[in-house]
Amino acid sequence: MKLWQKEGASTESSEIAQQIERFTVGRDREMDLYLAPFDVLGNLAHAQMLETIGLLTDHELSLLQTELKTIYHDIEAGHFTIEEGIEDVHSQVELLLTRTLGNVGKKIHSGRSRNDQVLVDLKLFTRDRIWQVAQATERVFQRLISRSEQHKDDLLPGYTHLQIAMPSSFGLWFGAYAEALTDDMLTLQTAYRLANRNPLGSGAGYGSSFPLNRSLTTELLGFEGMHVNVVYAQMSRGKTEQTALTAMAAVAATISRMAMDICLYNSQNFGFLILPDELTTGSSIMPHKKNPDVAELLRAKTNRLKALPMEVTLVMSNLPSGYHRDMQLLKEILMPAFDELLDCLHITDFMLEHLQVKPNLLDDPKYDLLFSVERVNELVLQGVPFREAYKTVGKEIAEHTYVPPRQLHHTHEGSIGNLGNNLIVEQMTTVIAGFGADRAQEAVNQLLGRINSES
Amino acid sequence: MKLWQKEGASTESSEIAQQIERFTVGRDREMDLYLAPFDVLGNLAHAQMLETIGLLTDHELSLLQTELKTIYHDIEAGHFTIEEGIEDVHSQVELLLTRTLGNVGKKIHSGRSRNDQVLVDLKLFTRDRIWQVAQATERVFQRLISRSEQHKDDLLPGYTHLQIAMPSSFGLWFGAYAEALTDDMLTLQTAYRLANRNPLGSGAGYGSSFPLNRSLTTELLGFEGMHVNVVYAQMSRGKTEQTALTAMAAVAATISRMAMDICLYNSQNFGFLILPDELTTGSSIMPHKKNPDVAELLRAKTNRLKALPMEVTLVMSNLPSGYHRDMQLLKEILMPAFDELLDCLHITDFMLEHLQVKPNLLDDPKYDLLFSVERVNELVLQGVPFREAYKTVGKEIAEHTYVPPRQLHHTHEGSIGNLGNNLIVEQMTTVIAGFGADRAQEAVNQLLGRINSES
Amino acid sequence: MKLWQKEGASTESSEIAQQIERFTVGRDREMDLYLAPFDVLGNLAHAQMLETIGLLTDHELSLLQTELKTIYHDIEAGHFTIEEGIEDVHSQVELLLTRTLGNVGKKIHSGRSRNDQVLVDLKLFTRDRIWQVAQATERVFQRLISRSEQHKDDLLPGYTHLQIAMPSSFGLWFGAYAEALTDDMLTLQTAYRLANRNPLGSGAGYGSSFPLNRSLTTELLGFEGMHVNVVYAQMSRGKTEQTALTAMAAVAATISRMAMDICLYNSQNFGFLILPDELTTGSSIMPHKKNPDVAELLRAKTNRLKALPMEVTLVMSNLPSGYHRDMQLLKEILMPAFDELLDCLHITDFMLEHLQVKPNLLDDPKYDLLFSVERVNELVLQGVPFREAYKTVGKEIAEHTYVPPRQLHHTHEGSIGNLGNNLIVEQMTTVIAGFGADRAQEAVNQLLGRINSES
Amino acid sequence: MKLWQKEGASTESSEIAQQIERFTVGRDREMDLYLAPFDVLGNLAHAQMLETIGLLTDHELSLLQTELKTIYHDIEAGHFTIEEGIEDVHSQVELLLTRTLGNVGKKIHSGRSRNDQVLVDLKLFTRDRIWQVAQATERVFQRLISRSEQHKDDLLPGYTHLQIAMPSSFGLWFGAYAEALTDDMLTLQTAYRLANRNPLGSGAGYGSSFPLNRSLTTELLGFEGMHVNVVYAQMSRGKTEQTALTAMAAVAATISRMAMDICLYNSQNFGFLILPDELTTGSSIMPHKKNPDVAELLRAKTNRLKALPMEVTLVMSNLPSGYHRDMQLLKEILMPAFDELLDCLHITDFMLEHLQVKPNLLDDPKYDLLFSVERVNELVLQGVPFREAYKTVGKEIAEHTYVPPRQLHHTHEGSIGNLGNNLIVEQMTTVIAGFGADRAQEAVNQLLGRINSES
Repeated sequence: MKLWQKEGASTESSEIAQQIERFTVGRDREMDLYLAPFDVLGNLAHAQMLETIGLLTDHELSLLQTELKTIYHDIEAGHFTIEEGIEDVHSQVELLLTRTLGNVGKKIHSGRSRNDQVLVDLKLFTRDRIWQVAQATERVFQRLISRSEQHKDDLLPGYTHLQIAMPSSFGLWFGAYAEALTDDMLTLQTAYRLANRNPLGSGAGYGSSFPLNRSLTTELLGFEGMHVNVVYAQMSRGKTEQTALTAMAAVAATISRMAMDICLYNSQNFGFLILPDELTTGSSIMPHKKNPDVAELLRAKTNRLKALPMEVTLVMSNLPSGYHRDMQLLKEILMPAFDELLDCLHITDFMLEHLQVKPNLLDDPKYDLLFSVERVNELVLQGVPFREAYKTVGKEIAEHTYVPPRQLHHTHEGSIGNLGNNLIVEQMTTVIAGFGADRAQEAVNQLLGRINSES
Repeated sequence: MKLWQKEGASTESSEIAQQIERFTVGRDREMDLYLAPFDVLGNLAHAQMLETIGLLTDHELSLLQTELKTIYHDIEAGHFTIEEGIEDVHSQVELLLTRTLGNVGKKIHSGRSRNDQVLVDLKLFTRDRIWQVAQATERVFQRLISRSEQHKDDLLPGYTHLQIAMPSSFGLWFGAYAEALTDDMLTLQTAYRLANRNPLGSGAGYGSSFPLNRSLTTELLGFEGMHVNVVYAQMSRGKTEQTALTAMAAVAATISRMAMDICLYNSQNFGFLILPDELTTGSSIMPHKKNPDVAELLRAKTNRLKALPMEVTLVMSNLPSGYHRDMQLLKEILMPAFDELLDCLHITDFMLEHLQVKPNLLDDPKYDLLFSVERVNELVLQGVPFREAYKTVGKEIAEHTYVPPRQLHHTHEGSIGNLGNNLIVEQMTTVIAGFGADRAQEAVNQLLGRINSES
Repeated sequence: MKLWQKEGASTESSEIAQQIERFTVGRDREMDLYLAPFDVLGNLAHAQMLETIGLLTDHELSLLQTELKTIYHDIEAGHFTIEEGIEDVHSQVELLLTRTLGNVGKKIHSGRSRNDQVLVDLKLFTRDRIWQVAQATERVFQRLISRSEQHKDDLLPGYTHLQIAMPSSFGLWFGAYAEALTDDMLTLQTAYRLANRNPLGSGAGYGSSFPLNRSLTTELLGFEGMHVNVVYAQMSRGKTEQTALTAMAAVAATISRMAMDICLYNSQNFGFLILPDELTTGSSIMPHKKNPDVAELLRAKTNRLKALPMEVTLVMSNLPSGYHRDMQLLKEILMPAFDELLDCLHITDFMLEHLQVKPNLLDDPKYDLLFSVERVNELVLQGVPFREAYKTVGKEIAEHTYVPPRQLHHTHEGSIGNLGNNLIVEQMTTVIAGFGADRAQEAVNQLLGRINSES
Repeated sequence: MKLWQKEGASTESSEIAQQIERFTVGRDREMDLYLAPFDVLGNLAHAQMLETIGLLTDHELSLLQTELKTIYHDIEAGHFTIEEGIEDVHSQVELLLTRTLGNVGKKIHSGRSRNDQVLVDLKLFTRDRIWQVAQATERVFQRLISRSEQHKDDLLPGYTHLQIAMPSSFGLWFGAYAEALTDDMLTLQTAYRLANRNPLGSGAGYGSSFPLNRSLTTELLGFEGMHVNVVYAQMSRGKTEQTALTAMAAVAATISRMAMDICLYNSQNFGFLILPDELTTGSSIMPHKKNPDVAELLRAKTNRLKALPMEVTLVMSNLPSGYHRDMQLLKEILMPAFDELLDCLHITDFMLEHLQVKPNLLDDPKYDLLFSVERVNELVLQGVPFREAYKTVGKEIAEHTYVPPRQLHHTHEGSIGNLGNNLIVEQMTTVIAGFGADRAQEAVNQLLGRINSES
């Protein structure tokens, strides 16, 4: 029995009815489990607001709060399920309330539609998961900074066009990916802020004739602000997911490129890195193989994540304004993506912790030409105009009189001899502070009647 | 003759050489014209810094500054071209300097590579254009807010599932797109901030043995900060373009959806809007047609823009770190996109200014059912639990006893009777202030020796 | 224990080892169940070939065949599982053989790698599923043709630019989607033919020193031909999936557009169609709603399918030749897509069977202008040059003297009065015959020792 | 003055009118030049058909034919332009006819809309260009086959997971890409066949009340068949472009992967290939560089081409049936793509002709392990079960007793010693014959009154 089913409607029991049920529900009940704790939070805030405008009595509110906290506890303990025949998490929570509290349970839907209920759940869920991704990203960042410092004197050939170019170092290489993550963190912050706006009170996208206090629910749920316009609150569906997936794709792109470097540097033809046994596999026919499967899968999984913003775009393109059922499918795109990215970040951290760097790589004479710019600069410092010096060294190389000046004097900010990791860490710290994540955590604790120990 | 050509190299003159030249240069010289003013700015900052570390004398700096300002003036006046046989804008500027100043002109390339030169040009260009897009977006935003206020009492059917649902208004409809643009503006701000970082001094991605003062050029060019790590500065290529195009795609998606609404609402079957004659065209065989071609092209052009982030992704995916020539093509994706989006925003503003709204739409009895929720809420306010009231009204409709309660009492924030446009304007103002665009403008004026009148 | 694990290697039991195991295996064991029957077929063909080149005795072959047919039967009966700790379907089948047959079971891997084993499985699987999609597509096609014939006299407004344009009919509308599917069927045929090539014998992509008879396995498995070059056989991974998903996306795009039409035509503002109750749902707050959720989900699901070719592209782009573990993930993109599309086609067929068409739509005077071209053509047939007639009718409309000539005389091929459905059916029949699917079925039956009753 | 403009309509001359003109026309006049010759062919066929149904006299037809052939000749000679103020190529051709022939020129638009006119032009254009791409692809194919034969004895390390795996050869490497192109050619053939269908007579998508003979124009234009249903003929817009771009993307993907291999193999760390000087460039700061820019740009340009099918998808997604102006933009996506791909194929051919292969690569002891499978197979041939042999060799490697058996005995089809290039050539020949391109060429010649010398 669905919320909207008319009395007396024939119970659909034919085979086709079941097929249609399967087709429309799809993976939605599985997806809705992700939303369960956030649905309870939304209910708690909505109920508290309803009381202030006289749609619930003080006593009714108290009953609802107790029951909702019990449900939240059950969810945390892994005891919550969506029962057979119940369409979604919202119906399940309402059912539990109604079972225990009767009509009081039914009253909580006043001034609300499933549309703004799922919207608020999605906002809270996305806010939570983006913050988890941010924290996991920061752990990888710290690992990279630490490996960068550890290997600041381990030189590495620097390439352009996949041709040997100039000396680089593992300090630079690790540090570069760390700094990349600070930019990605800024993109995550934007996604966080788009998720951190309250759509509750927008109903089915056209508001309500009840005198809802939307500022109150905004504050109770710890949102930074409100999606003011009710039509826009509904229209933010799609944009929220898109922005979150785009930010995840940015992190994924950084991990993906690093994984490509690792696969290449691990090839015998480069031989810059050694991967621990746990991160390699063998071949069913070649007894000598140690393949970097984990790095390859990291590359592939992060590359797949990069496709997801386009998938959202395809679902949403050219749909006129107003809700369409199409949007339900966005859940299947968004939700597992968080799991996948968090998994990737965890494995990346492990890989970065354990990969070993080969020392003294530049002693190999095949890398002599890496120092040609050093030679040019020597001449420039002796007063030769740059373009002349460039030609002179070119001639030395052609005539085999070139001697690589192996002493490096890179001292400026961000160069081999002065990595500037402290500046990068400072940037990261500032960006993370900009999330304002404490506020969200505090609000959640308050709603649940918990002491704010975590914030 | 190219910067890197060896003396005595045979002048390539065969047909295939020309074909390869055409293939490699492609549209690059056309694209480089976009960069010309920014290349001059980068040169001015680099020269000033070189003087502080003793690689240019005070006098040489002065000569270079005068000449560079002349070139900038020529660019503004539309007199700058990249000469036949000159590979790119950087070579052209250097050529002009060398022609006038001889060896002094050659000295300016010290401590710099074409890689960080194009990087800094791209950053300055992107920063400039994102800001232009932000300003054009704000103009559309103001227009939407103004039309929203003008039509706050003009009701409109609200749809879900493309089925008539609940009463909406043109106030809500215009305002919704305005608020959408505030979220898009946040994404633009992120793109602005990623573009607002100094890569100069990173050379070919591995820094320089000259004691460059990168903090100085960061300040001179008005950047918010620096890409510290030189390997990352190079790796930011692709990420900068991607982020800029993603932000443009967000604006485009909002415009695209609005254009879809307009095309639909302009159809005789809806008939909610009248487009001015300038924005419609006729048919070669149907004498009665007035087609909304401009809205359709707006929709299509903005939809195309949504494809561009993926195009960048495809060029960059699975490339190992370090520069690759592939990145040159990103210019062709990025640069015309700004023109296209600015054009679309301009036309959108004109369309929004001139489209007429049909009054009294909800008087048509076919829209009676829009008021069914109002009827439900009436009962709820009389004490009937929501789920009961819902069933009662369902029965009234089925039994044709339903009377639409046409008086609306939507009073909460963001609803028909209380649009909250002031809150939306406030949000927009805050986001725009967060760009910090004044600082960039001041720095540019200072470099060019201009009075800061514009900031 | 994996096929490639060295003896004495420590059993990985730590938590991280489990995480890595989970990360690398991912959904692979779930995906491999799709391949099980095809792995057995590949084994049957490989074994038969090994006997002809002396690597198996006649007796060993016979033992293997019996055992493999038993496994196939178990798979069909739903009794096959991949045991805990077994990496993939290939290892599981080999394990079952070795358990029963000892060393004989081990011998079957001679002259083969897991790489060409999974390749041949994927080819057989894809060939099978493309054919299933083709058959389901044909059923929808037949439904469309039948509804087209049924409604050939039910007129419908024809739109261009979403503006009413000229008279159309449900006969044309249904028939148009039928003909679209004939073009999609051609794309499916291409995907079928790319899947219908034998990669077996290519080993890990570099062939084998055994004197394999690849022509024999090609014939035994009913392939149209062979991927000759062993490096290419490996490189066809990715291309096969891409081509299959592209063909599915073509079918999906046709269904998606039809679903969009249905959602629009079902809106009260059009009102051209009535959907049966099984295909609509209600609203939790609006008691009057009958939403076309099934059509919307059909649109969204098919739109998602259109994203998948790009997902494959992203995984494969810029990978050098040779196998990479990244390719494993292609299974997760490809395999569930077949289920999803088959499901969509099934529901489409049901929807097309049951949707009702509203009669006499063009009697509504708001559609009078649809007949303006008829009026122009009347004048042309009276000798007025087309451009003159066009202007005359334009003037009639402006001066309200226009009288719609409601009698239609469309007689040419493919027009309202002469739908040409027989020609369309003929095209479809020809394309389907071009698959050559009988041959594949016969070969499979022969391998399994079954009578060719189905072909 | 536009075809559809009403008499007395004010001439739009304001600035905004010009902006809207620029916005709507866009690059359309540039794009339409691609269509000019095909528009003339469409006119010739339509005129000839009109005569058979009495809408043109014999004499009028003759006048039109003479004039149209003159225009065709002017186009070929490069003398055709679209005049200022003329909207598109169709109007320009009609204008030229009307200038010379007066009312006879006006009569040719009878029974036709600009919609089916542009459709037939696009079909003819696409058919022509796909065939050009097919021919250029075949030239690259022949080059690859020839280099494969030339280097069939030059061994190359074979990689899996970017780890050295088993011996390969340049014979295999070149041949693999040749065979890849045979599969791509099949995809091109499908695109050719979708383009090879006649939409003429479908008018604006709803047919005509004139008794058009569509079979006749189908035959005259050499089409394989007709888009029968007029609604579908219109709906094929988008699908035709999509399919063409998808086929081009398939060719592009093959070239892209080959270019990646070349960039990698040209790196000093691999050193398998030498690129001629024409195909490399230097660095502005590193005097030693020889960068493979042409291969990199080839990779990037072909990667960009892979994005185009998605761009078409984005423009077309969720548009209801019937023409929309959005489709105009598809021309800008499709047309330059042909130029780009043909350019890439031309440069690929040159690169393949001139790149040099390094001999005796496998003599380097770092490649010893490539032969481990050979050693395993030696043991298998001595009767050791495969799994045992595999373990034995693993132990030999670990205990440094492994001796690489450098003699290769790969004899099966498609392996190092038996490349099977003749089979691959045969496949290619069959696929190309399947285009049926002669028929199109003959029809064109007949329409133009030319002798069929080319076919």
